[in-house]
Amino acid sequence: MRAYDIIYKKRNGESLSRNEIEFMTMRYSNGDIPDYQMAAFIMAVFIKGMDKEEIYNLTDIMAHSGDIIDWSLISNYTADKHSTGGVGDGTSLIVAPVVAACGVCVPMMSGRGLGHTGGTLDKLESIPGFRTNLDNKEFIETVEIAGCALIGQTHNIAPADKKIYALRDAIAAVESIPLICASIMSKKIAEGAKTLILDVKTGSGAFMSSYAQSIELAKEMIDTAKKTKINSTVFITDMDEPLGDCAGNANEVKQAINILKGEIKNDLSYLSIELAAAMIFGAKKSQSLDEARKIALHSIESGTALEKFREVIRLQGGNTKVIDDPDSVLSLKTKEQYLVKAGRDGYISHMRTRDMGMACSISGAGREKIDDKIDNSAGIYFYKKTGDYVKTGEVLASIKSNKKDSLRQAALIMDDAYLISDDKPAERKIIKEIIT
Amino acid sequence: MRAYDIIYKKRNGESLSRNEIEFMTMRYSNGDIPDYQMAAFIMAVFIKGMDKEEIYNLTDIMAHSGDIIDWSLISNYTADKHSTGGVGDGTSLIVAPVVAACGVCVPMMSGRGLGHTGGTLDKLESIPGFRTNLDNKEFIETVEIAGCALIGQTHNIAPADKKIYALRDAIAAVESIPLICASIMSKKIAEGAKTLILDVKTGSGAFMSSYAQSIELAKEMIDTAKKTKINSTVFITDMDEPLGDCAGNANEVKQAINILKGEIKNDLSYLSIELAAAMIFGAKKSQSLDEARKIALHSIESGTALEKFREVIRLQGGNTKVIDDPDSVLSLKTKEQYLVKAGRDGYISHMRTRDMGMACSISGAGREKIDDKIDNSAGIYFYKKTGDYVKTGEVLASIKSNKKDSLRQAALIMDDAYLISDDKPAERKIIKEIIT
Repeated sequence: MRAYDIIYKKRNGESLSRNEIEFMTMRYSNGDIPDYQMAAFIMAVFIKGMDKEEIYNLTDIMAHSGDIIDWSLISNYTADKHSTGGVGDGTSLIVAPVVAACGVCVPMMSGRGLGHTGGTLDKLESIPGFRTNLDNKEFIETVEIAGCALIGQTHNIAPADKKIYALRDAIAAVESIPLICASIMSKKIAEGAKTLILDVKTGSGAFMSSYAQSIELAKEMIDTAKKTKINSTVFITDMDEPLGDCAGNANEVKQAINILKGEIKNDLSYLSIELAAAMIFGAKKSQSLDEARKIALHSIESGTALEKFREVIRLQGGNTKVIDDPDSVLSLKTKEQYLVKAGRDGYISHMRTRDMGMACSISGAGREKIDDKIDNSAGIYFYKKTGDYVKTGEVLASIKSNKKDSLRQAALIMDDAYLISDDKPAERKIIKEIIT
Repeated sequence: MRAYDIIYKKRNGESLSRNEIEFMTMRYSNGDIPDYQMAAFIMAVFIKGMDKEEIYNLTDIMAHSGDIIDWSLISNYTADKHSTGGVGDGTSLIVAPVVAACGVCVPMMSGRGLGHTGGTLDKLESIPGFRTNLDNKEFIETVEIAGCALIGQTHNIAPADKKIYALRDAIAAVESIPLICASIMSKKIAEGAKTLILDVKTGSGAFMSSYAQSIELAKEMIDTAKKTKINSTVFITDMDEPLGDCAGNANEVKQAINILKGEIKNDLSYLSIELAAAMIFGAKKSQSLDEARKIALHSIESGTALEKFREVIRLQGGNTKVIDDPDSVLSLKTKEQYLVKAGRDGYISHMRTRDMGMACSISGAGREKIDDKIDNSAGIYFYKKTGDYVKTGEVLASIKSNKKDSLRQAALIMDDAYLISDDKPAERKIIKEIIT
């Protein structure tokens, strides 16, 4: 078997056997196939696609390229949630403690901000001392004690995926349904949770902006999950406006804590409870979805979810004072601020969400290059969202930044990111479809 | 400008600007863009294609990545010929001395055997002492003295093409019309000949096996030539059976010498004269194509073409005794031989020419890996060709090899490479179409 012949086949649009996919994946992971051959192969896969059998094989091979964690000695109830990424999508920070407080194990491996989207790890690291880089042993211990841990992909979880993902990121081969599906599902298989709730974002702030593509990705992930005996449900959710009241890092942590305290009720808290309920019911900790929803809401009302978050922060080295007094611990203040104002009277009919995510990243909340440092305090607060009636000059949003130049760039984008019209837009549903 | 964004555009099937193509090509050539990004880009070009403007820009940029040779101080009459590669295609060995003997400068840069096809440089190197690796200075001196030189791509002729070609060869991205066109034409522009005759092979022994693809490649090359003011004509010629009486290296040199002596008249000698005539007429050394044909034939009858070949061999360090007594100088004998015999009575209706080329390469005449050494004496003699009537057991071909194992492999292929049927096949034309 030769890499050349496998590239040749895929380039011509042929399906590959499990042996061929294993040859490419594992030899690349081991360093026997050079980057340039894998890059050509990945680009051929990107353009020519993969059939269901190929996607499953790629997923399974990448999952088994490292450790597969077995939680059965710790708990019979395990669940995780994964989002394809959006703007202001801080659900993980809320969902993980809520579900863990309801007696389900949540071994959650998250990612960092990418392009216009934020990342759970970056947000958590705005809590002073919080460590996301646990190894497998620390990860298991934390879950054993708290029923929950929030970490990054460890060294030996799907290492083949890790290497291929870095290559895809360098060669403009990210937005491919087979490759996204295999990358997400291989990590989730290795991570070992038996119930998986997938949150596929759709709309102007999602990686997959078309609804049809979102559905296609959802179905591929469900099919792959079924083959690996993971109980999986996909939520197709709206990303045609930012989720919640802000986007950034420290500001999203503060918002999550306030939601866990029951002090804020918004689209973010609504979606978080729905996702949490699906995880609780999927993990068989309730008889019905409705019961799961009640349990989840109760964990907030009773304060157990907030205490669970405190415990996780403590175990992962973070300053737990953030729970009681976020403002004293988090970097929330910036040197500069810009107010985005309405140019006319009318209803906000659309928010260019990808642009808003880019503006947030440019303000300092994201990275342009892999080594860039994140400014925890930078970000955007959204005071008005789609459907709201505004008057000329009314403040729609504020951008926080410590760099004048960055603020100016972000302001230029934000000034152009709201569409205001005379007609009130149709009501939007946050959850568009649930696929099982 | 970033490589990532250019890959992204091409991956999505968009056209690239001249600046973008220049960025990718020159930064890669200079080592600033890594192999893996270029590999992804090349694969995207392979699958998504390039429009005429892009092909011209890529060609022109690669041509100007090194020296452009100017022959105007030496001669007003310059011509070259390029073949897309076939089995037994020894036309260059005949055409170059014939055309040079007729007063046209022939600065010919050729290639090596690739896959199932032979290469002019490999064939010439079967003449003891013959050097094909002249530098630009030696190349120009040889052409100045003899009116002809037969060499490989020099260090500073289209270096960007050289680097990209090596990458294409490693990532299964060879058979692409835009990339083939740009690779051939960039070298030819840099080489400086003002008339270019392109021999695009079609049929089972060609890289482009479909006729439609051959026509498409021909038209791209003509269009590109026009933009660069090269006077160009494309011959679409038959490669549905091997050309001439043999395929290999030393045996093809011997056959070429015998054709230059006027001792052999076959399809190879016919095609060589037609190509030579087109070069002579194209370079304006005759008033008509018919006159050019007569001059070319006369150079053989008078012996001037043979003497020209002797002069070139002498100037490039080869043993000129090969002209008078090929058998005493060339390696023509092998330890092993296999006779391919007819399995039934009938007409030869088809020769699987690609397979025959592979058998020839396996016998020792070609390379499997880039560093393999060629066996000059290995190869195949074709005694019967398409349209011949044969009887059961009659010898169709002989395979010469010095390795038993290789001979056995080649024999297996050759035994299966002739189709014999009751009906006499239709007459075949060697030159299928001439496009200007």
